[in-house]
Amino acid sequence: MNIAVLGAGNIAWHLSKALIHAGHPVKQIWNRTSEKAVALALEIGADSISTLNQIDTDIDLIIIAVSDEAIESVAKDLQLLPHQLLVHTSGSTALDVLLTYTQKAGVIYPLQTFSKAVQVDFSQIPIGIEAFDEGSTQALFNLAKTLSTKTYYINSQQRLVLHAAAVFACNFTNHFYSIAQELIQQSGLDFNLIRPLIQETAAKVQQVLPQEAQTGPAKRNDQLTIQKHLDLLKTNPAWKLLYEQISQDIVKMYSKDTSSLK
Amino acid sequence: MNIAVLGAGNIAWHLSKALIHAGHPVKQIWNRTSEKAVALALEIGADSISTLNQIDTDIDLIIIAVSDEAIESVAKDLQLLPHQLLVHTSGSTALDVLLTYTQKAGVIYPLQTFSKAVQVDFSQIPIGIEAFDEGSTQALFNLAKTLSTKTYYINSQQRLVLHAAAVFACNFTNHFYSIAQELIQQSGLDFNLIRPLIQETAAKVQQVLPQEAQTGPAKRNDQLTIQKHLDLLKTNPAWKLLYEQISQDIVKMYSKDTSSLK
Repeated sequence: MNIAVLGAGNIAWHLSKALIHAGHPVKQIWNRTSEKAVALALEIGADSISTLNQIDTDIDLIIIAVSDEAIESVAKDLQLLPHQLLVHTSGSTALDVLLTYTQKAGVIYPLQTFSKAVQVDFSQIPIGIEAFDEGSTQALFNLAKTLSTKTYYINSQQRLVLHAAAVFACNFTNHFYSIAQELIQQSGLDFNLIRPLIQETAAKVQQVLPQEAQTGPAKRNDQLTIQKHLDLLKTNPAWKLLYEQISQDIVKMYSKDTSSLK
Repeated sequence: MNIAVLGAGNIAWHLSKALIHAGHPVKQIWNRTSEKAVALALEIGADSISTLNQIDTDIDLIIIAVSDEAIESVAKDLQLLPHQLLVHTSGSTALDVLLTYTQKAGVIYPLQTFSKAVQVDFSQIPIGIEAFDEGSTQALFNLAKTLSTKTYYINSQQRLVLHAAAVFACNFTNHFYSIAQELIQQSGLDFNLIRPLIQETAAKVQQVLPQEAQTGPAKRNDQLTIQKHLDLLKTNPAWKLLYEQISQDIVKMYSKDTSSLK
């Protein structure tokens, strides 16, 4: 299955490499900024194209891996042939967006945080698949299984929920690492102090569910400690407010548990 | 240095085992609930005692590893001998609390999340040390270095900041894993889908600082995606509010960065 990848951002970069690594011919790369297309094409031995009407007739699969708000405008500009399968890679965009342009449409959603500087083991990345018709679904599953041991059928609504969950579990979590970083550095300490704790917190929930792994003052409803931390945070009202609200949410979650155990 | 450990909770359990493992004679265990003291004492080959006045005269180091609000009442009930060094293990409790009872006082603060069910590699746990006098400081550093390769001098104010940072980086982070768990399970999906993402998010900041690792819709100020997620969360106003506030905080942090780079 000859492949064209549209986009040269973090996902396009990692996905193209994983496809090549699994033996799939990624033949063409397009990107709105053509220098980035050239760079990625060079990296994986593909051709770069500067306009969307240069997509070859022998391309079977076109992967749109651009920012969410640009997906539709890219789809609109394509001149699709009947045999070409069109997919996007977005967590928060429904399959419907592509159906205006073709019914041979699907989604390949690799659930991971990608940065160009950091290598990832693609074989461990869960891939969510969705497609409009049975044949495309099967074709995408066959492809996904060559990339990863973890493939799932995930519909558009489920994918949006999963994407929101990923924002909590990854983006917000990382923001809290940043808040920790600022607090630690402001008091003259080293961020290395907290790295093992971050690692262990993530490692625990690989074995158990998060609700079993919860610790800390809010879990124990330890108002004395909570108050000391709130006093400390009063120079940053936004963080103080977040601390209060999340602590309340934790207290609510676990006091509920206790009463249901009685 | 003969040691008595007061408490039999998560920290007492892991610290006692690490001390024994490093060859230190942990001779006595006390706990308010004596069955727990008996269980821990049995596990490590120590004696359990049911009252605080049973602490032997040949004990050199007394470690208070009880809940924060109970530290002072335990310290008050001790009949300390002049050679005995008294320490606590709390992140949010100042050294001062012990100084009313003895000047031979200090703190051993292992910065990690402890659950009895999960083994931890104590040698990788950062240990914060504080003590009132030079001799005790040196004695505690000597001890800590037999437990871990990562020992730091951390004063009471720094320790409180570090503890608040740990609440963000560990307890709140884990709560966000729980929110992700609930969202995922409510939509009929498997929590396993998101475990690799959690692992990778923590792994990234072992190499780089969190602010370099940030990804996601708020980092990109992608209001279209943010709005889709907020619509999805409207059945849970507390989570919707958290989503809004944290997204705003991320937008603020990175729009500031951009303008400073211009």
